[in-house]
Formats: sequence, structure tokens, C-alpha cells
Amino acid sequence: MSETRAPEAGDAGVGDGDSPLIRLTASEAAARIASGEISSEELVSACLTRIEAREETVGAWAHLDPDHALEQARAADRARAAGHGIGPLHGVPVAIKDIFVTAAAPTENGTILHAGRQPEHDASLVEQLRSAGAVILGKTVTTELAVFHPGKTRNPHNLDHTPGGSSSGSAAAVADGHVPVAIGSQTAGSIIRPAAFCGVFGFKPTFGLVSRQGVLPQSAPLDTLGPMARSIEDLALVTHCMAAHDPRDAASWPRSRPPLPQIAESAPPVVPQLAFIGSPAWEEEAEPVTKEAFGELVEHLGDHCDATELPGLFAEGLAWQRTLQLADIAKNYGPLQEKAPNKISAKLTEMIEEGRMVTAVAYNRAREMQDVLYAGLAQVFERYDAIVTPAAPGPAPSGLDSTGSPAFNALWTYMGVPAVTLPLLEADGLPMGVQLVGPRRDDARLLRTARWLLRFVTGEGEAA
Amino acid sequence: MSETRAPEAGDAGVGDGDSPLIRLTASEAAARIASGEISSEELVSACLTRIEAREETVGAWAHLDPDHALEQARAADRARAAGHGIGPLHGVPVAIKDIFVTAAAPTENGTILHAGRQPEHDASLVEQLRSAGAVILGKTVTTELAVFHPGKTRNPHNLDHTPGGSSSGSAAAVADGHVPVAIGSQTAGSIIRPAAFCGVFGFKPTFGLVSRQGVLPQSAPLDTLGPMARSIEDLALVTHCMAAHDPRDAASWPRSRPPLPQIAESAPPVVPQLAFIGSPAWEEEAEPVTKEAFGELVEHLGDHCDATELPGLFAEGLAWQRTLQLADIAKNYGPLQEKAPNKISAKLTEMIEEGRMVTAVAYNRAREMQDVLYAGLAQVFERYDAIVTPAAPGPAPSGLDSTGSPAFNALWTYMGVPAVTLPLLEADGLPMGVQLVGPRRDDARLLRTARWLLRFVTGEGEAA
Repeated sequence: MSETRAPEAGDAGVGDGDSPLIRLTASEAAARIASGEISSEELVSACLTRIEAREETVGAWAHLDPDHALEQARAADRARAAGHGIGPLHGVPVAIKDIFVTAAAPTENGTILHAGRQPEHDASLVEQLRSAGAVILGKTVTTELAVFHPGKTRNPHNLDHTPGGSSSGSAAAVADGHVPVAIGSQTAGSIIRPAAFCGVFGFKPTFGLVSRQGVLPQSAPLDTLGPMARSIEDLALVTHCMAAHDPRDAASWPRSRPPLPQIAESAPPVVPQLAFIGSPAWEEEAEPVTKEAFGELVEHLGDHCDATELPGLFAEGLAWQRTLQLADIAKNYGPLQEKAPNKISAKLTEMIEEGRMVTAVAYNRAREMQDVLYAGLAQVFERYDAIVTPAAPGPAPSGLDSTGSPAFNALWTYMGVPAVTLPLLEADGLPMGVQLVGPRRDDARLLRTARWLLRFVTGEGEAA
Repeated sequence: MSETRAPEAGDAGVGDGDSPLIRLTASEAAARIASGEISSEELVSACLTRIEAREETVGAWAHLDPDHALEQARAADRARAAGHGIGPLHGVPVAIKDIFVTAAAPTENGTILHAGRQPEHDASLVEQLRSAGAVILGKTVTTELAVFHPGKTRNPHNLDHTPGGSSSGSAAAVADGHVPVAIGSQTAGSIIRPAAFCGVFGFKPTFGLVSRQGVLPQSAPLDTLGPMARSIEDLALVTHCMAAHDPRDAASWPRSRPPLPQIAESAPPVVPQLAFIGSPAWEEEAEPVTKEAFGELVEHLGDHCDATELPGLFAEGLAWQRTLQLADIAKNYGPLQEKAPNKISAKLTEMIEEGRMVTAVAYNRAREMQDVLYAGLAQVFERYDAIVTPAAPGPAPSGLDSTGSPAFNALWTYMGVPAVTLPLLEADGLPMGVQLVGPRRDDARLLRTARWLLRFVTGEGEAA
């Protein structure tokens, strides 16, 4: 039984005894800190109290140093009191997936092989968040080397279900009210899927928008970084803060920082037109509740949405994504596996072995097809503002041995297009995400369309 | 027996009966056409007369349409007479290797499989040369698909010797006085080697400086385009005209067009300091005449040059270059070979088959090592303005079945650094090139250093 719901992302398990501060979005928190209504220390303390109460149950954190978090918060408060300029995230706590290097905390990449590893520097995006005034609250749990073998995290909506992966801790922390924003990464479906499973907003920007300098490399032509949050406004704000050009990442392109928040929060100049595309995974992988929910959603959207299909060639995209990911996993993680074969999970070992067999010809053809396939997709965007498609085959599966399937994400990651998931649906008491996909480099317009859809479905504000 | 010689590049076989116009460099020709001293039609006619006399012997041309060449020349003359603005190559004939698409002539890529193939457009660099006012004289012979199997071209200095490859026709045409400038391409050693064998100046700019849009792709991380000419000034002028940023080539980077001629023709602010590096191929591949000639050259340079060596890791560079080239040959030419196996040479078939075995892991490690190795090389350039090294194992080998070894070129191509060859040496009546290698993106300074070296060795002008 599925239903459309008015989302209160981050409401999982939040009770009356908790501070109302832990329900604030980053944008709301930043505004209140800037105006002096609340202090960063109050907000961070409220988050830490919530984490203390819930962490044993949820297991979202890999590293958390409350004293260091409070130190940053008090420094932010002092800077404001002293009249210093403050950034757009001044005093707002942000969580960082534990595959991004941080100078103030270890970075263990979800593997015992990197236990206790302490980097010297901050990853580029951490530097950028600090420049925007953010308090780096701590490091969130990742699956083993950001692939499939789960960490300790549980889904706050139902502790017997997976939170999704690989950005498991980031999604659970936001969903459970530990922190308003957390950063994740996606090589197949590691931002959109856990965000959908945990009922929060998640955004995978255009490939190359956020620098990967200082981030564990899994697959250079696929790895993409982005935020999870409790509102679309927060996705825009935080992505904006992270989106500086960085020549150290070959995928980054020279440009000014895109004005994501301004565009994302504006009204669309004309009513958006959406294309419902089940994606090549629809027939075989979408669960009945998903088919039912999306059938209703498309009906509800009426003239604003046409159901359409992609040409048959797109079905190959999933195999090409897998070719790239496996070969790069073999290159990047193979040496670790050779060094300590019994410290790598059986599943990852199998993937490494499969990846070692990929030929350069197959890899480079798959690389070339990224742009060829996108050229076909771009034609869809000549008629439609965005594609509507499931964020996952269904709600979070039961059990903690798997993080679920990225079948509804990998194709979009492969083509480097921006994708956002909105926690608009529900089935069996678990959240389900509606994924919107847009053209490359038009991230702000996709978020604007997402905001329009959210308002249309929830009836909040004006829909056009 | 080797000796240093004052080069008169392009003097192979030029006799008293020939028009003096065919000895002009492009820079000289452009100046005389601009001043009205000569017309483009006179110059192009002189070139065509020379070609008519020599082509049967040398075999430099794949496609030549004298009427179309003269039409372009007359149009250039009319434009000048009408007072229109003229470009830096106005009315100057340029030859184009037959792997660059041209709308006005077929592009056959040196393979019977593309016989008669007529593209619709000009390659980006051809467009840029036309914008600079150049007359596209015709298309020059390439080896089969720009790899190793020779075309019909002979070395003008000794018809029983190879002209080198794959840009065989471009080198021979410039050497034999057919045209002042010809464009070639290099994936291993295909500009520098034939230029050296034919006794002309050749320049492989920094990887990505000249757009490869419209050029037969052989290996995306290696393919580099550049000119052959009769002076360093011409190398700078023609490269400048071709060096616009082009977003259609992923290797191109956003920038203004570099002022190569101004810098290349200026006096060095301090006397350049050179490093003689035999390269990893020196011990096994350099011929005795090469060792003798470079020993004398280094001695002659005295305090201006230190003999030094690269760390042992650089010896791997040749294998890594080969990994990339073979795997990409398999990807790019494998489908042709599958379609018509008996129309592909045995040598190329063998390379395709070897390339199909390269794993994605090996390929991508070789890709990563390009920058790692260059980081080591960059340290050399903190102390030295340029590296001096042979352009080839020796003079052009006897016989027309092979185009010689790229062992002295492939390492520099792999690292994407600019390289220039100067026809400064001679052995057994054949020219030998002195190769100078500089840091990435500092093409103009390398050409300036080359000009200093030329003057120092020949005693022409002031050496500092």
C-alpha cells in the first residue's frame, strides 16, 4: 500500500522531548544564527544531545568529537559577536562521509585496513564548507570503501531495514535529526538511494560540479559528491558552498560559482513539463508498490507529465556503468586486496576479481558511450524540464546484509546528469523517493523544478 | 662520421633551376605577400612546379589539386588587393597530413579502407589555418592509419632511406621544397622522427595545445598535432595560428591564444641552461654516430649544458606509452580490422591483437603515471630551461619497409611535454635532429631556447 505524503524529512523518531532546534533546516539555522536568535553552540549542543540519545541505536557516526564540534561552534559565535563577516553556513553543523579526508578527524574509508588513519589536510569540499562558516560535526559511516559491504548504520524509520549505501551514515544522521546536512558520494547510487530509503532530500549534482580532491577515488569517470538535507533549499545552499572550480580535479571545469540558491528558489518562468521514464530497470526491478505509487503520481500530475520511454540503447548504460566501476575498483582497491586479502569482504573481492578482467577496449568504449548516450538524453530535455523516475526499486529492503540495488541510479550517474530525490512517497510505513533528473550543468533549474513538484504534490505554496 | 652543420632545411635536392621562392620560409613568404613584393599565386605556382618535377620521385602527396590551390591563392591576392584585412599566413601554402578531415579534398587516412572518403567539414586546425589566411595546398602521405606501415614516400636526402613516419609526406614535402610548412601528428614519434630524418624543423607542442577535432583518433591521451617547417620562427607562427582553445577536444584547456611568435623570437632574459639527457633509450638504441655527435655537441655547449640522467622509473614510461597506444589502436582500429582483416597490414593486425589484451587496470595505471612521471620531470625544469636529447636513434635507416624507431620520442609524447627538433647534425650524408624538450604549456619558452641553441651552434647572430 503506497501513498503520497507531505514530507517532514528528518522526522524519523524525533519525539516531543527533543529540542526543536534539531528540526531546523540548514537555511533556517543559518538565518537564526546570523540574526542572533540562536547561537551555533546551542544548535550544535542540541544535535550532540540528540546523537548521544540515538547513536547506539542508529549507528550513523564513524568519528564524533563533541568537544571539537563545540569548539568550532563557540569560535563561530565569537566571530559573529566580534562583527566579523559570516558565511552562508555560519555556525551550521554539517556531517562528512568518512571517505573525505579531514585534518581534525581520522578518515577510515569504512575499512579496517585504514583504521586510525589520520590525514594531514581537509578535502577540497571540507575546506569550502569551512570557508562558508560550517561547523564540521563529525564523520559519518560509509560502507566498505564506499562500495556495497554495509557498515553499522540502521534505517531510523525501521531499524531492521537497511539505510541504503554507501553514504549510509549521512542519510541516517539527517533522517534521525542528528544534523541538518550531510555530505555523501555516488558512484552508482550512493547518495540518491540512501536518501530515498531514509526519507530525506538528496542531490547528486552534475559530474564535476563539486571537487573530489581529497576524496577516496573509486571510479574517476563516475564519482560524484553531493548533499543530503531536509529541504531543497538546503541542497541548493550547501551545493553552492561546495561548488568552486578546482583544477586539482580533472572533472572540474572553469566557471564562476553557480548561483544555485537564487535560481532554485525562484518561481519557474513557465510551468515545468515533466517526462515520466521508468528507466531500463523499471520492468524487472521496480516493486509493485513502486509501480502503484508512480502510477498515481503520474496521474496526479496530469498534463504536467507525459509517460515516455528511452530508446533501447539506454538499457546498455547499466552494463557500461558497471564496466567502469568494476575496472576502477580493481585498479584502486586491488592493491589493498593483494596486501590483505582476508580483510576485504567477499563481495568486494569478487568485484575486484571481475574488474581485473575488464579490457582497456571495453573500458574506453564505455567511457565514450557516456557522451553518446547523453546526446540522446539531451533530446528529451529539449521537450521536458526534467525526468521523473523512482529513486530505488522500492522502500528500504528488510535486513542489514545488503544496502539495496542502485539499478535506478547507475544510469544517471553514468551520464553525469544531476539527480535529486524528494521524500514524497511512502509504502509500508517506509519512505520512498521521487527522483528528478535534469540536463548536465543545469543543476539550479533542476532544483527549481524539484521545488515546483514538491509544492504541486504537497499543495504547499503556489504550484506554479 | 658525424658533424655539426649550418642547416639549410628544405634544401634537399633543390637545384639552381628552381624558383628561389621555394626556399622561402612561411614567415618570409607571408611578409613578402603582405608587402606586395610577391603574390600568393606566384608562390603557390612555384611550389606546384617544384612538386610536379619531384613528386614522382619523392611521393609526398596523397591528394593535390593544383587548380584548387591556385584558386585559393588568387582569392588571397584579390582579398589583399581589395584592402581586406589579412591574416598572419595570408596567401602562404600549407600542407595537411591526410588524417585531418578537409572539405575540399578526400581524407583517406593511409588505408585503402577509406579510399575516396570525402568529409563534409574541415578539421578544427584546418579551419584555423584558413582563418589565418593560409592556402591549403593539399594532403600529405601518412603511414597506414598513422601507425607504422609505410606509405609511398621516400627520403629526399637519399631515396633508398625512409622519410620516417607517420607524418612521412609532411616531412618530405617540406624537406624537398614543395611547401614551406606542413602539419603532422604524433602519438609516439610521428612528428619529431620524420622531421629529423628529413632534415627539417619539427614541433610537437604541449598535449592539448592544438585541437584534434576532425583528426583520426589513434590514442586520446597521446595524440598531438604540430608543424614541420624550415625555421623555428615558422614553427612558432604556425602553431600560434592553430592554437585556439576548442571545447570539442577534451584535452584543450580554456586560455587565450598564446603569443608564441613574440616570445619565441625574443632574446632569452638570461643565457639558457640545458640538461643533456640521453633518455632511457640511449644505452640500447642510440647508434654510434649519435653517441659521437651528441658527445661533441655537449662538449661544444660547455658550461651551458650539464649531462644528467633521469631516475630509473622513467624507463617504464616507454612501456606505459605502448600500453596506451596499443589499447587505443585496438579500440579505434579493431572494428576496421574485424570488418576487413585482409586490408589491414600484418604489423597493425599484430598491434591490434596485442592491444585487445591490455586490461583496463593496466591502461588506467598507465594514464595515472603520465602525471606522476611528469611531476618528476618538472623538477629537472626547475634547474634547466630544456632537455637536449637525440630526435632518433640515428639518421634515417636504409630501406622503405620501416619508418624507424620512436624510442627517442615516445617518452616525451607520453608525458605531454613540448618537443622540438632542429636539423643541426649530419652523419653519412643524412641529417640528424637535436631534440629539445621543455615543460608543459611553456611552448614559447622552449622555442626561444631552441632559437638560442641554433644561433649558438651555427654562430649565426648573437648566442645570448
